[in-house]
Amino acid sequence: MKALLDSMQGVPANLKFFIEGEEEIGSPNLEPLVRKYKPLLSADAAIWEFGGTDRRGRPNMYLGLKGVLSVELRAKGASRDVHSANAPIISNPAWRLLWALNLLKDKNEKILIEGFHENVQSPSPEEVECLKNIPFEEEFKEELKLESFLQNKSGSEALEALLYQPTCTINGYISGYTGKGSKTVLPHEASAKLDFRMVPNQDPTEIFRKLVRHLERHEFGDLEVIRHGSTEPTRTPLTDPFVKLVAETAENVYNKKAVIYPTSAGSGPMHLFQNFLGYPVVSAGCSHPEANTHAPNENLRIDSYIKGTKFIATLIRDFAS
Amino acid sequence: MKALLDSMQGVPANLKFFIEGEEEIGSPNLEPLVRKYKPLLSADAAIWEFGGTDRRGRPNMYLGLKGVLSVELRAKGASRDVHSANAPIISNPAWRLLWALNLLKDKNEKILIEGFHENVQSPSPEEVECLKNIPFEEEFKEELKLESFLQNKSGSEALEALLYQPTCTINGYISGYTGKGSKTVLPHEASAKLDFRMVPNQDPTEIFRKLVRHLERHEFGDLEVIRHGSTEPTRTPLTDPFVKLVAETAENVYNKKAVIYPTSAGSGPMHLFQNFLGYPVVSAGCSHPEANTHAPNENLRIDSYIKGTKFIATLIRDFAS
Repeated sequence: MKALLDSMQGVPANLKFFIEGEEEIGSPNLEPLVRKYKPLLSADAAIWEFGGTDRRGRPNMYLGLKGVLSVELRAKGASRDVHSANAPIISNPAWRLLWALNLLKDKNEKILIEGFHENVQSPSPEEVECLKNIPFEEEFKEELKLESFLQNKSGSEALEALLYQPTCTINGYISGYTGKGSKTVLPHEASAKLDFRMVPNQDPTEIFRKLVRHLERHEFGDLEVIRHGSTEPTRTPLTDPFVKLVAETAENVYNKKAVIYPTSAGSGPMHLFQNFLGYPVVSAGCSHPEANTHAPNENLRIDSYIKGTKFIATLIRDFAS
Repeated sequence: MKALLDSMQGVPANLKFFIEGEEEIGSPNLEPLVRKYKPLLSADAAIWEFGGTDRRGRPNMYLGLKGVLSVELRAKGASRDVHSANAPIISNPAWRLLWALNLLKDKNEKILIEGFHENVQSPSPEEVECLKNIPFEEEFKEELKLESFLQNKSGSEALEALLYQPTCTINGYISGYTGKGSKTVLPHEASAKLDFRMVPNQDPTEIFRKLVRHLERHEFGDLEVIRHGSTEPTRTPLTDPFVKLVAETAENVYNKKAVIYPTSAGSGPMHLFQNFLGYPVVSAGCSHPEANTHAPNENLRIDSYIKGTKFIATLIRDFAS
C-alpha cells in the first residue's frame, strides 16, 4: 500500500481487509458476522491469503477449498476399568468403538456411510484439462519424502483424488492403557476423532446426519457422536475473468507461469465469500516449500514475502485498470 | 507357624515358602529358576495365596488359572504427522491398525484367528456339576454394579464363559490427536495392546504364531507384532484328594461351605507347579469382597487376615495327620 501511495499518488481501487483467527477450529463465529455485515463486505473479487511458490519458483494458486466436518465418537463400558479376566462377560468399549469405525470405511478405502457420495460434483472438462498442467507428482513426493502414493496411485490419479475425493479420516483415538509394556486391563471408555473432507455439493450438516443414522442402523446407536467445527466446500469457476487476471499478473511478477489448482485439498470458510457474498476468490500467498506449514519451525522467507508484496501491489494496479 | 510351634511342640509337616514379585508382568524370570531348583521345590501339594471370602463369608477356592499372552501391534505411516487434507494419497496407520484388529474379533465377540480354538478343553462332567454350586451371579453383579452380562448371558452362561472361554481383549490403543476439540491431522503411527486368555490346552507360543500368520494372510504383514509376557493355562483336577481336604478344612474353620471354582478367570504361573513340578495346587487367601483388588485403596481386613491364618494352621495339621 505504501509503495502504491508513493508511486501512483494513491491506491487505484477500494480495498477491504478481512482478518479472522479461528480458521483452525472451523471459524465458528465467522458466519453470523459475515451475515450481519453483508453490505460492508461487498466486493468485486477477493484474494485469499494462502499458498506461495513451489520448488521451481512457480506461484501456486487455488480456486476453491474442500469442506470439512470434525466429529468425535465415544463408547462407554463398565463404571470403571476392570481386570481383563472379565472379558467374557463385560462389554469392552475399545472393541465397540473399533467395530463402529470399521463400519465407516473398509480396508480398500471405500467410505461405507449410506448416501455419503450423494451430490458429489465431478470435475468439469476445463478442470480435467487444468489438472494436466499441474506438476504435482515431483513437487509432492519431494515435500513429503514419499516413495509411493496410497494404493499405488499414479501421479495424475493421486492429484485427482487429492482434489476431488471426499474423505473420512481418523485424526486420533485413545482407550485404556497406552504406556510401556503390558497391562491386563479392560478399559471403561474409548474415543476417536475423525474429519470428513467434502467436495461441492456435499453439506456438513447432511453428512453428520447420515453418519448418525448409519451408526444407528448398524446397532451402534449407543455411541455418543459429538459434532465439532465444519465448513462448506466451494470453488470459483476456472472460467472466471478474475482467475485469468490473477494468473497473468503472477506470471509477470514471478517470471514463471502460475500453477492453477481448481481447488485445494484443504478447507476454510471461503464459501461465505464465494457463495454467500458472491464474488470470485483466488488464493495467493507468500509461503515456500520449506515453510513447515502447521509443523515445528514453521517459517517464512524474506524474499518470498517481498515478492508476494510486489505481486499484490501489481494485481491491485492491474485490477483497477 | 508360631501358633503351631506353641500348641503342638513343632510344625507337623515340612513346609516350603515360595514368593515371587513379577506375576503382574508375566513372571519372566520364574521358569528358569523353577527348572534349576526342581528338587528343592518338590512337594506333595501347594496352597496358592489368592482369593478369600465372598459377601456371605464363604471361602472361595480356585483349582486353576487361565493362561495369558500379552501383545502389542504397531502400524507406521508417513515419516511424520501430516495435514489430514492429504488423506486421499497418504496411508493412515490409525485406519490400518483398526482394520487389522477388526480381523481378530467380530462384533458378535467371535475370535476369528485361524486355529485359535484348537486344543480347547471342554469342562468335564464333574466341572459342569461343580459350576452349579457357585453362587456366581449375585456375587458378581453386586461387586461390579453390573445390570447385565455381555450379550445378555444368563448367570450360568456368564460363569461358564468366564471360566472356560478363551478371550481376545483390547487393553488399550492410541494414535494421533487425543486432546480437546478437533485437529485435522493424519497420524504417522498407531499402536494397540491386547491380551489373550487361554484355557487348557492352548499354548501362548502357538497362539502368537497363529496371530502373526493370520495378519500376514490378510495382508497386514507390515504391522509390527511385539510379544510381551505370557503364562500357560493349568487346572488341578476336581477329583484330587487334596481338593477335598482343603474344602473340608475350610468349612470347619469358616463355618461355611467352601465355594470351589474349577479355575479362576485370571492368570498366573501356577502351571509351573501344577504341571512341571507335578503336584496339586489349590488357591486360598485372606481377601474380602471390598478389597478393591488391583484398584485404588486396595485393602485387607484384619479379621480376614486372622481367619486366613487360622485356616492355614489348621490345614497344615490336617494335612500332616
